[in-house]
Order: sequence, then structure tokens, then C-alpha cells
Amino acid sequence: MIGEITRSTAPPLPNGRAARARIITIGDELLNGIRVDTNTAWMAERLTDLGIVTEQAVTVGDDETAIAAAVREAIECVGIVIVSGGLGPTQDDRTKKAIADLYGVGMTNRPEVEQAVRGFFAERGRETTPVNLDQALVPEGFEARVNPRGTAPGMLKEAEGRLLFVLPGVPGEMKALFDEWVGPLIRERFGGRVVILHRWFRTTGIGESDLFDLVGGLEEMAPTVSLAYLPSPEGTSLYLTGQGAHEETIESMLDSAEAHIVRRARSWLYSTSEIDLPGHIADLFSERGLTLATAESCTGGLIASRLTDVPGASAWFRRGWVTYSDEAKVEELGIPDELITEYGAVSIPVVSSMATGARSRAGVDYAIAVSGIAGPTGERPGKPIGFTCLACAGPDGVVTKEHLLGAGGRARNKRRSMSLLLDLLRRVLEGLEL
Amino acid sequence: MIGEITRSTAPPLPNGRAARARIITIGDELLNGIRVDTNTAWMAERLTDLGIVTEQAVTVGDDETAIAAAVREAIECVGIVIVSGGLGPTQDDRTKKAIADLYGVGMTNRPEVEQAVRGFFAERGRETTPVNLDQALVPEGFEARVNPRGTAPGMLKEAEGRLLFVLPGVPGEMKALFDEWVGPLIRERFGGRVVILHRWFRTTGIGESDLFDLVGGLEEMAPTVSLAYLPSPEGTSLYLTGQGAHEETIESMLDSAEAHIVRRARSWLYSTSEIDLPGHIADLFSERGLTLATAESCTGGLIASRLTDVPGASAWFRRGWVTYSDEAKVEELGIPDELITEYGAVSIPVVSSMATGARSRAGVDYAIAVSGIAGPTGERPGKPIGFTCLACAGPDGVVTKEHLLGAGGRARNKRRSMSLLLDLLRRVLEGLEL
Repeated sequence: MIGEITRSTAPPLPNGRAARARIITIGDELLNGIRVDTNTAWMAERLTDLGIVTEQAVTVGDDETAIAAAVREAIECVGIVIVSGGLGPTQDDRTKKAIADLYGVGMTNRPEVEQAVRGFFAERGRETTPVNLDQALVPEGFEARVNPRGTAPGMLKEAEGRLLFVLPGVPGEMKALFDEWVGPLIRERFGGRVVILHRWFRTTGIGESDLFDLVGGLEEMAPTVSLAYLPSPEGTSLYLTGQGAHEETIESMLDSAEAHIVRRARSWLYSTSEIDLPGHIADLFSERGLTLATAESCTGGLIASRLTDVPGASAWFRRGWVTYSDEAKVEELGIPDELITEYGAVSIPVVSSMATGARSRAGVDYAIAVSGIAGPTGERPGKPIGFTCLACAGPDGVVTKEHLLGAGGRARNKRRSMSLLLDLLRRVLEGLEL
Repeated sequence: MIGEITRSTAPPLPNGRAARARIITIGDELLNGIRVDTNTAWMAERLTDLGIVTEQAVTVGDDETAIAAAVREAIECVGIVIVSGGLGPTQDDRTKKAIADLYGVGMTNRPEVEQAVRGFFAERGRETTPVNLDQALVPEGFEARVNPRGTAPGMLKEAEGRLLFVLPGVPGEMKALFDEWVGPLIRERFGGRVVILHRWFRTTGIGESDLFDLVGGLEEMAPTVSLAYLPSPEGTSLYLTGQGAHEETIESMLDSAEAHIVRRARSWLYSTSEIDLPGHIADLFSERGLTLATAESCTGGLIASRLTDVPGASAWFRRGWVTYSDEAKVEELGIPDELITEYGAVSIPVVSSMATGARSRAGVDYAIAVSGIAGPTGERPGKPIGFTCLACAGPDGVVTKEHLLGAGGRARNKRRSMSLLLDLLRRVLEGLEL
């Protein structure tokens, strides 16, 4: 079978034309709606960075015939095929068997994989069972690559200049193998044909259509770049792509597009990189040697959690409170009882007092506070669901803001409140208009 | 062309066999990694509920040739094809043209769609431009359905008992058209052939392969059910599917499979429903009228945030601390300085003191605490990255646990620590072995 499937119908690739890839994700859970496939987008982004165009993505179930058919067709069409999923130790995972059958080969035990599997369980103080050891069986003629995060190895068949990678479906494992193995190998084999460059522009506090009205006209100005608008509850990002044979030409196109975007959207733009708002805040605090504390009500710890997702956060993040009850606000942050009685827990006076209380208790440079009505219940007269009060206390005093976020759902309102508060903080730190 | 593509090679569908569908999503943004395709999973779940099996999902870019090829192949393979995306008014949307060319037909203006488009803009106080009016052009021979949320109509070609739907890619518009039009029509044409039922089982604290060893053999016991293992940093869920012509038969198969799973995995199973671990904890606390506080170090507020994601959390969640620095632990939770000096911040004595301190300060029934080394740096002698200490303080005293999570990444270790701590809490509440 192997002779047949390596006889590719894909055309040769002249310089300046991107090599093409197909991504195949495998799993019944992706086809009955219980899991969203996030691996395809992740791999597609990495491939774009490598100058590779993903021409199609396919998802099939845990079915040997369907897997084999999809892999066969892909190999006949493109130079790079990446399969992900169906490599678990359980019976519902069929990828390895399907691929061995497709190539008409058996499996052989790979000592380096076996050793890694045994090490994986030993490190965790657990026994290696026979089912686990099956992970060391790899189809003959395939290169095996030890999985740094799990037990299923990556596998590679390279023939006639074409690459077939088989990776586990667990996102962390797939990503680790991609970054240390798949990506570098693709760069080595297919690099330099075409250059695809992109730039991120991250905005918050402005809607997609308003942003479009601001930066529109870019396509006429620079017809060889494309601009995508990516709205989310945390803000709308812009993703600018340029493609061509010569890096300098693309860079200069992107430079003029960037100048246009920055000029038009400056006030809403917090970053011209992939770094998100918590990451940008982290950079500001660590670069300036400042410290931060948080006092959260409706966001329930989300802000502290997202800030401490950034590696090294312990250098500038000191402490946080989730003062969900009125008593907690009074006892932990020293908010006067009367303030809550008079204005209610969701009010500018209370959130302002939360921020100053947190700042003085924690002994930090800045403290931020939020109180709001996340929904789906809890509205009060004059305070609908989505009403949110924000405060930022610093060496120069307290600034506050209030917003109406609408009844867009609890999780969405938490994320929007977080973004608006972090945006307020960055505006204070960067000396911008509030 | 139309004669050729309706000559299907799909076999006839006897009773008791599910009709099969293919989902085709369209858009360059899905193939360069800047957007995750969530439409496929959403539609696949709806189809499963209708008793339809999605055999494959395909994503292609905004390219007429690729769209036409994918649609043609799908129509030849299955009885239901749903295309989503590429119907916007901008130049990069190509789906309608590709489909008209595939069927060899032109477009005709649909007055009811034109009227709806004009109404859509009039309602928003905006002018209807010629580009917007193009939305009323629909390939000849296709039924058009007015979009209740936007301007691109849904389209349907029905031939020889097969259905080809073309829907917009904007999730809200696609979902609205699916629920009011696509779903009911599929039920009318294909309903009653087969019943697909599923059940969730949620476990935590046990790896996928150990779980397989426990509940394995189910397939031989009940060959007409299938069991999927869905591992995540928060635990492995099991998803059981039964399929057949008669609901009672499937229910009884699922009952015996469930009995087997519950018997074998009881100790790790926290829920036999779709509810996740924070949701399960929320149910326990609200049903029993108990109150909770959290004291987090390495998880940085994630636990409080996930618990307060559950609507109504304010009834039982009182307050939380993110004591990221040693000073915060001492000042906020009253942990003796000496304890940190002697054992280190990541230690059983400290985490135990965090839990009792939080419980007494907050005046709650239960308090949980976690301290660990999330990575990527911070390891100490005897305390590698991933070393995590957990404590749960309640009316009967404190219980503690320590775990080695490995260097699986910061975000992953936060989620795993959260799950292990919430599992410890539920075991205490449910009187289970710790």
C-alpha cells in the first residue's frame, strides 16, 4: 500500500508559493458536539507562522476506515499532513491501527518510548500497566518521538519529500510535540519558499464596527495585506497578514498599514503584539518595579487568576481579595458599613473604598477593585444586570468608572468587567485619557 | 451538473440506522488559526439530538474551487449536508457563487429576502446599500429562508431525499436558522429512524488509563453502546452513547452500562450528569445550606473564580483570599511566621494553617486552601515544579493532601490543583475515603 499512497498528485512547489498542509483531527467527541476542536486553529496558526498554507481541515471519528481514507486522501493532495487524536491508551482510540493498516505494516516496540512511559509513571509514583506500555508500539517505518507531556509518542513518516505527522489529541501534548519537533522539522524541509508575516493589534473598550469605521480603508491603501477583526468579550483584536516572496517588501507594507492603524485607533490600542491585557499589565508592573493588589466582587477572583497566569507574577502581584459578601467587604477591606447601606455594594463610593482599603492593607503601589451585577439575577432599581463599578487606587489618588454591560451572560460580564478594569489601570499607568 | 451530483453513492437507510450528515465550515480565518471553529461542535450536538450521525466535518477557505469540491463530495456521501460560512456581503465571501456554479445555475432575486434586508437596516436607522441588497440573490432552484438575526438568508436544495443546507457563519445567525428551520426540517424528513441517547460520567483524581483499567470490558458486555474517554486537566469524563431503533432497549442497555461504570469507578465519580466539579460543589453547598471560603496561593484566584461562575454562588460563597506573598499569608490569614520559615510556604503545615485561618476569619462552615509550585520556575530542594499542598478545614477538623503534578505547565497545574482540592472538599462533604 505504501507505494500507492506516496505517489502524490500534488504539484511541485516553485519558490514564492507556499507549501500546503492538511490537518486531520480525530475523535468521536469532536463529531457529536461534546468537544470543540481547538487543535486545528492552534496548528493552523503555527503553520501560517512557518509560511505554510493550511488548505483544508478534516475531522473524522474514531473509526479505522474513516481515518485511513482521510489520511490517504490528504497524502495524495498536499506535502504536509498532520494528524492529531486517537492515540490514547483506551480502546476507543484507533489512529495507530488505522495508519499501520493503511501502510500495510505491523507495530514494533520502541525502547526509548517504553523507557519514557515507565519514567512518566515512576515520576508520579504510579505503576506502569500493560495498557500504558502499548504506547511504545509504533507502526514500522515510522519515526517515533517521545512525548514530553504524556505517554503517546509523536510519529512521522517521511517519503518523497512529504511529511505525515501523527500527534496525540490532548492539546498540551500536541503543542509540546509541535513546538519542539514538528515545527522545526517543517521549517527545515519547507522553509524559505514564501514569507507570511502578521502583526497583532489589541484593542479594548471599542466595538468591532466602530473599530472598522476608524481603521477602514486599509485594504484600498495596501491591497496586498489583509486585516481580520476578532471581537471577544475582552476587546477586539486586529490581525494583519502580509504574504509574498520577499521579507523586506512585506515588512514595509506592514509598516505602513501599522502606522495607519496606530494613528486611527491609538486611544483603544493597548498592545501591538500578541500579548493580552493581563500580560501587558504584567509587563508594566515588572518593568517599573511596582506592586499590585486586587479587590473583586462580581468577577470572583477572575482578575487575580488571569494576572497570576503570567509567569513571574509573584514579583509584582502581592495579594487579592474576593469579597463576595457585604461582611467580607467590611471586615477585610475596612469599608464603612454605612457606605454599603447608603449606596449599595455595587456603587462608586463602595468600589472606591474597596480599592483604597486594599491598597493600604496590602501596602502596594496600586490596587484595583470591581463590584457589579454579573447576572443572571440580582438587579436592583437603577442598577440593571451588567451594571459595573470600577476603581483604581494609586499614589495619586483614586479614579473610578461605571459601565452598563448589558445582560450578555454571567461569564461574559465577568470577562468584560475584567478587561475594562485592567484597561483603566493601564490608562492610569500610561498617563492616558481615562 | 445538477444531475451528476444528485446521483448519490450513499446506501439507502434502513430503519434503526442513523442518517448521516457532513458539516462544511468555510472561512480563511478558520484555516490560518485566528479563529476556532465552534459552529461544527454546536451543529454536531444538535444533529446528535436529532438522531443523526455526523460522519465527517470539513473546513475549507474562501475559495470557490475548494468550496465546490467539498460540497460535491459531501452530497455524494451522505443524506444531509450543512454548509456554514462565506455568505457575508464582503468580497472575501464566496460560498453562494461556488454553489451556483456547482449546480450550473444563475441567481435570482428573492423579494421576501430583499424586504427583510431593507427592514433590517431601516430598524437600525441605516441605509440599505447595493452590496447589502446582493444578499437577496439566491441560486436558482434553492429555497431561501429569511435570516432572523442578520441579512444573509439560509438556503436549501432538496433532491432525491437529500438535503443541502447553506447557512451563514456568524454563530448567532447560524444557530437561529438551525433551530427554527434546519432542525425541524431534518426531524420531519429523517426523524424516527434511530434514537441516539447519551449519558455523562464525570471523574477526577484518576488518569485515563487507570480509568480504562477500571471500567474496561464494557464494550464486550454491552456491544451496542460506545464509551468515550475525555481527559482534561480537571479530570477524565466518560461519555456513553447508545443507539438503536427503540428507546426502551437503549435505555436499558445504558442502565446496565451505567451500573457497571458506577460500581467500578464509584470512588472517582463525582457526577452522573453534565455538571462539572465547581457546579457539583455549588449544588452540595446550596442544598445543605453550608458556606465556603477559599485561601489560594498558586492557583491565584482560579478556584474562587470558577466557583463564582455558578449562578447563585453568593448564597454560599462568602469570601476568598489570594495570598500570593508570604506577608499576605501572615497578615491576612494569621499564619505564624515561624511556620513559613521552618517548612516553607509550600508545605502541609502552612496550607493547613491557611485553611483554618480562612475558616475562622470568614466564619464559614468550610474553608479550602492550596499552595504549590505552579512553575515554570520556583522549584526548591525536595519541592519540584508541580508540588502542591491542599487542605480542607471544616467542623470536624482539617484534612490535607499533597500531590506531585509534574512540570505540565503553569495553567495546567493551576487547573489540576483546583480539581484536586475541590475533589478533596467533596470527599469530605460526602463522607468518602480521602
